Amino acid sequence: MGMYAAAVAERQAGTADEGALEADYAAVRALSVELAAPLSAEDCAVQSMPDASPIKWHLAHTTWFFETVLLARFATDYVPYDPAFAYLFNSYYEGLGPRHPRPQRGLLSRPALKEVLAYRAHVDQAMQRLIGARGAEILPFLRLGLHHEQQHQELMLTDIKHAFFSNPLLPAYAPGKPVPTEPVPAMAFTAHDGGIVQVGHQGEGFAFDNEGPAHQVLLRPFCLATRNVTCGEYLAFMDDGGYRRPEFWLSDGWAMAQASAWDAPLYWINTSGAWDVFTLNGPQRLDCDQVVTHVSFYEAAAYAAWAGFRLPTEFEWEAAVGERAVPGQVWDWTRSSYDPYPGYQPFDGALAEYNGKFMSGQMVLRGGSFATPPGHIRATYRNFFPPSARWQFSGIRLAANP
Amino acid sequence: MGMYAAAVAERQAGTADEGALEADYAAVRALSVELAAPLSAEDCAVQSMPDASPIKWHLAHTTWFFETVLLARFATDYVPYDPAFAYLFNSYYEGLGPRHPRPQRGLLSRPALKEVLAYRAHVDQAMQRLIGARGAEILPFLRLGLHHEQQHQELMLTDIKHAFFSNPLLPAYAPGKPVPTEPVPAMAFTAHDGGIVQVGHQGEGFAFDNEGPAHQVLLRPFCLATRNVTCGEYLAFMDDGGYRRPEFWLSDGWAMAQASAWDAPLYWINTSGAWDVFTLNGPQRLDCDQVVTHVSFYEAAAYAAWAGFRLPTEFEWEAAVGERAVPGQVWDWTRSSYDPYPGYQPFDGALAEYNGKFMSGQMVLRGGSFATPPGHIRATYRNFFPPSARWQFSGIRLAANP
Amino acid sequence: MGMYAAAVAERQAGTADEGALEADYAAVRALSVELAAPLSAEDCAVQSMPDASPIKWHLAHTTWFFETVLLARFATDYVPYDPAFAYLFNSYYEGLGPRHPRPQRGLLSRPALKEVLAYRAHVDQAMQRLIGARGAEILPFLRLGLHHEQQHQELMLTDIKHAFFSNPLLPAYAPGKPVPTEPVPAMAFTAHDGGIVQVGHQGEGFAFDNEGPAHQVLLRPFCLATRNVTCGEYLAFMDDGGYRRPEFWLSDGWAMAQASAWDAPLYWINTSGAWDVFTLNGPQRLDCDQVVTHVSFYEAAAYAAWAGFRLPTEFEWEAAVGERAVPGQVWDWTRSSYDPYPGYQPFDGALAEYNGKFMSGQMVLRGGSFATPPGHIRATYRNFFPPSARWQFSGIRLAANP
Amino acid sequence: MGMYAAAVAERQAGTADEGALEADYAAVRALSVELAAPLSAEDCAVQSMPDASPIKWHLAHTTWFFETVLLARFATDYVPYDPAFAYLFNSYYEGLGPRHPRPQRGLLSRPALKEVLAYRAHVDQAMQRLIGARGAEILPFLRLGLHHEQQHQELMLTDIKHAFFSNPLLPAYAPGKPVPTEPVPAMAFTAHDGGIVQVGHQGEGFAFDNEGPAHQVLLRPFCLATRNVTCGEYLAFMDDGGYRRPEFWLSDGWAMAQASAWDAPLYWINTSGAWDVFTLNGPQRLDCDQVVTHVSFYEAAAYAAWAGFRLPTEFEWEAAVGERAVPGQVWDWTRSSYDPYPGYQPFDGALAEYNGKFMSGQMVLRGGSFATPPGHIRATYRNFFPPSARWQFSGIRLAANP
Repeated sequence: MGMYAAAVAERQAGTADEGALEADYAAVRALSVELAAPLSAEDCAVQSMPDASPIKWHLAHTTWFFETVLLARFATDYVPYDPAFAYLFNSYYEGLGPRHPRPQRGLLSRPALKEVLAYRAHVDQAMQRLIGARGAEILPFLRLGLHHEQQHQELMLTDIKHAFFSNPLLPAYAPGKPVPTEPVPAMAFTAHDGGIVQVGHQGEGFAFDNEGPAHQVLLRPFCLATRNVTCGEYLAFMDDGGYRRPEFWLSDGWAMAQASAWDAPLYWINTSGAWDVFTLNGPQRLDCDQVVTHVSFYEAAAYAAWAGFRLPTEFEWEAAVGERAVPGQVWDWTRSSYDPYPGYQPFDGALAEYNGKFMSGQMVLRGGSFATPPGHIRATYRNFFPPSARWQFSGIRLAANP
Repeated sequence: MGMYAAAVAERQAGTADEGALEADYAAVRALSVELAAPLSAEDCAVQSMPDASPIKWHLAHTTWFFETVLLARFATDYVPYDPAFAYLFNSYYEGLGPRHPRPQRGLLSRPALKEVLAYRAHVDQAMQRLIGARGAEILPFLRLGLHHEQQHQELMLTDIKHAFFSNPLLPAYAPGKPVPTEPVPAMAFTAHDGGIVQVGHQGEGFAFDNEGPAHQVLLRPFCLATRNVTCGEYLAFMDDGGYRRPEFWLSDGWAMAQASAWDAPLYWINTSGAWDVFTLNGPQRLDCDQVVTHVSFYEAAAYAAWAGFRLPTEFEWEAAVGERAVPGQVWDWTRSSYDPYPGYQPFDGALAEYNGKFMSGQMVLRGGSFATPPGHIRATYRNFFPPSARWQFSGIRLAANP
Repeated sequence: MGMYAAAVAERQAGTADEGALEADYAAVRALSVELAAPLSAEDCAVQSMPDASPIKWHLAHTTWFFETVLLARFATDYVPYDPAFAYLFNSYYEGLGPRHPRPQRGLLSRPALKEVLAYRAHVDQAMQRLIGARGAEILPFLRLGLHHEQQHQELMLTDIKHAFFSNPLLPAYAPGKPVPTEPVPAMAFTAHDGGIVQVGHQGEGFAFDNEGPAHQVLLRPFCLATRNVTCGEYLAFMDDGGYRRPEFWLSDGWAMAQASAWDAPLYWINTSGAWDVFTLNGPQRLDCDQVVTHVSFYEAAAYAAWAGFRLPTEFEWEAAVGERAVPGQVWDWTRSSYDPYPGYQPFDGALAEYNGKFMSGQMVLRGGSFATPPGHIRATYRNFFPPSARWQFSGIRLAANP
Repeated sequence: MGMYAAAVAERQAGTADEGALEADYAAVRALSVELAAPLSAEDCAVQSMPDASPIKWHLAHTTWFFETVLLARFATDYVPYDPAFAYLFNSYYEGLGPRHPRPQRGLLSRPALKEVLAYRAHVDQAMQRLIGARGAEILPFLRLGLHHEQQHQELMLTDIKHAFFSNPLLPAYAPGKPVPTEPVPAMAFTAHDGGIVQVGHQGEGFAFDNEGPAHQVLLRPFCLATRNVTCGEYLAFMDDGGYRRPEFWLSDGWAMAQASAWDAPLYWINTSGAWDVFTLNGPQRLDCDQVVTHVSFYEAAAYAAWAGFRLPTEFEWEAAVGERAVPGQVWDWTRSSYDPYPGYQPFDGALAEYNGKFMSGQMVLRGGSFATPPGHIRATYRNFFPPSARWQFSGIRLAANP
């Protein structure tokens, strides 16, 4: 999409140099506002389901994070912009007090978008002062705040896409037509020997707590696909009755598919027999060579079973992909439940809630998507969503036993 | 509130004179926009519950009504502003095709508020031409369209009030403090002899189909309170355990009160033991002399039982109030289910759905409120809402057997 | 069904003679046990939905009623059979303390059926003593207890029918085939002049509180069908798309029909294009000449609208049917909401909850069904159920304006 | 409980000798009937929640399993007892056709308990003939059928316990008082070196598909508690606000605990400040030395966090417990999601649904409980339930990092 400038990518050098830090901070913060630029104040206020949040809320919550985690602790003279915002823009931190109920974020016509932007400016000013004064000391928190904001940058796109799809007018986030994809090569696999491999994050750069500790796992030999499943391949599954044949499905997945009357990925629109796909550029004719996305873990697993393959575990994925270029076009669902690594230690204090408390009922996704800010992704990165989630940029990478 | 100019009130003379009709049309249509004036585009997009609608939707739906009921039929050269609007802004007319689901009206960030205003201007221009050309012929439909819009004018206030109450910032629709109420006189009743009385609408002026046919009913002698129950009186019911004593409640009402944990009227806020009340002017200290409002039929009936009285039937109300000045401060819940009058005939065609299909599961309210446009109310007017509804300007008027 | 012996019918002479009272008591109580006779203990324990109750519960609750309303008050030396039964078998009397939740009545494998029968014997013995000692004094309560039990006798049949329909084996309550119906005469109407008519109960015999006070109402001339709508006539409505055409339906009814995928009366079974009907004798081929039953008020109203007629009000029904033979084959849904009569006074004390608190959200049915014990019905009798209820023996009688 | 005779335990020798097989079959089948012996037909019909099944259903379903998996395939002349039973008693096999809805199993008053027992006798006779004729050939299916029935034997106890707890009379399944527990030793841990360990089932004996293939995993050093957490220890967690402090809880667990108002394990009854516990012997005073049970995974994990420990992974559990005596007193919740082992292959055909399709959204439990038939458990056995399940005999075993 060309929305992530090279400048942002270069920012992740891991330096504590204050000048660079200030520039990093400014670049990440600017990108959020840039992502909201094509949208009206009304667009920024919509919440189309409890799992998604209004764009305005993302803009404010990421700001609240800096205010709470950095300014409140380290900037002794900082005056909060508005005390009510601690209630409105806390996401899920029980340790930081009560919160506005998540499903009601779309009711917040006030504060207005322009006031949220003023809030951002107020916090940015104080943050720049703080970075100038105490850069090295606050570095871990600063990096966390920036990576946190980058996570929300991807969510801004997933959430506005869902909001616009909920509007019968099917508006486009970005004008113009997407570039036609090139023909994809035949599906191929690379073989891996397995054995003892090192997984998890270690070293200097930033990582979330859930990526550690680094440790060794023992893998059996396996094969991993060199590319994602395409829309055309997925269509063959559909044409073969994939959504009507329980033998391919996990029990929970089949129940969900039946209850929700799934018969295609989210955003596929059946128009008199042909398929259109709703994109950030509006509805487009289905392109069979494009990577299939907006499938749940359940659908990914059912597709794999139908195709005679399986999904990789997160450790197979990490061992195979290793230091190769990331992000991918879509996040890869893995066959791994989101459990803690052996010896896992959450962040301290209220930030302990950042990742650890969600280690139940979710599946791991790996690799990043086109919408992931480039400096944000790592081979050890563990994204996670419930197995039924479909509004993320999530796709399918096959694995097999040799 | 001073929001309804005297000019509007005078409009209802029932004339078919085109000049007056054009002025009537312009005045009613202008008031809707005027009611939205204190609100931002974001405010106008919020839907706080399925029963309420966004202000923007009210502005568009009332316009769609003129477009569909008048322009599409009588203005042969009329070009619809946007064909998609027939889907977006049809409220509940099965006969006019499928509709955008009611609970999702708040997701419509597009069309933007300014586009809805352009839609209004487009339709207004065509309507003024149509009135000029065919005033007499279209008069019944024109009047219906104007009264329909007036109904929505009151709903705009009930709905924005609910939306703002759903926002923890509790914003005010109108600045300033409400005028303090004067001390109320002691509760008094007027006696009525009953006998055969005429009810229902007849004569020249406009009335909805549900007000007819006029017919005779036989009433027993009864007494009707000369004023509504006040907040102070209602507080005595609460202090006497009114919300915890099932003996005063209808079975459905008790179940609802328990399930929803009702312990006061909607919009009452318990602040460290004292009561505030959320109003269109924002939160205000409870004024015991003010009329209690935002109670459900269930609460009204429970209060009446506790007080040793009952609610009036709609015919007692109509016989007693007769030609007295209306509207009142709040709508009076009656003890009458919303059933059809003997010989009831709905409007023709798609408009048959206007009132008739709702004659099940609802209770009749009478008399109008401070928010009812003055020319809109009549002694025969039958408003109706489910017995659990609390977001309307609904209050309590007591009755008794002699 | 031949299940109500002539002896029972004669019992309702309204005498206070103790010998007759004892016989009345014994006859009514015996009939309940007789109704349960074709059923196993397992059959008697099933609750197929929250609205229905297990047969065993009916047998116990009616006994609890005598224990609570009569023995506990008037039989000073009476020892309750089991103190826990006050909790288990109180139906809905808030004034008599907490109750076992209604939807969980089917979980009561204990007390066993045979223990409930022992409970009945214990109470019956004490009741016979009480009647012998204080017959005249307790007469109003005794009569209420007997009529209360008769209400439950009809419910025992409606509830076991629903329970057996919930079992894929579709067992029959009674063996054998129903007697073939005779050909029905053409639909005919009798005209009534209207005017002032007396309605409601007065005089010596027993009546429920909701049938009074007797009062006068003013009716317009009307016509009432001389028989109920048949299955064949209803089938014509279905074949004409009755369940797919919203123009005939009340709004709530249409929503219910859509949500519940109604396409025929309850208990109609589509077997390869033909219709069977589940009866107390098990599934039977549809008999077009039989009276249609197990329709909701919503379906009754939709049918009437489709047929170009309407349903009668409860007062039209009462004025027209008057002292004619009751009960009918099915209960007639009326177009009257279940509201209190002018001057309505509930029973005293806890019995105030018997009828009054249900006067909201329900429609009146008149006339009784084949399953109503003969001495139990009156021309003034007001039965009531929610408009969506279908498991009662409820049918359609048409009315019209002249 | 003395309910599992030594004879049953010896049955699991893995021989294909027909005489022994016939005895094995008879012993397992007899135990199911023996478990139902203290119950009335009414008791056997109750279903207290969708997750639980009536005892009668368990008795019939296990019989259907033999009928379908063995007789229908291998006994060429076998005549099914009743063709309708394939619909009534199929549990969840999509491949074997439609099923009676799980939440409605409690509505099946027919077939009667005595008919289900006749069904068992019919199938047992045919099975004994089949074993005599083709013992070796059918051995894998026979063993599966027996282990399947043993799984249901434990469920019969968990389900009747839940059913009786749903009855306000709190009946006892077994008369008499439980033997007082001996004082427990202080909590102690054994250290394990970790490293590469072999897990999963291999060799001759029976195992479910989900226990294989055997494979190696790499473990870090860890410590495992030598006994389960007691009620007294759990009470300390409760007294320290364990149910009110979100910092110990997983996010889903906290949401569940709040929504369900959990404040103690299932079956704990607060009686005027003291705790009783509902057991198969009826309510008993809380015994602090007894092992805590009927906690969900969420509660187990919260307790462990509060205590400064964690739960073991299923591989730590298996490595540490190894060949030690099983079953335990309660099942141990592990910190492992129920994912497939590398190279997992489900059973063939319809039996593929036995385990594989449930590998999503569940947690692994290990070790067995007092109610697990002795020959049924293995060190490699993987039981699984949703993290919110509390009606199983599930407890807490702590683990720690060295």
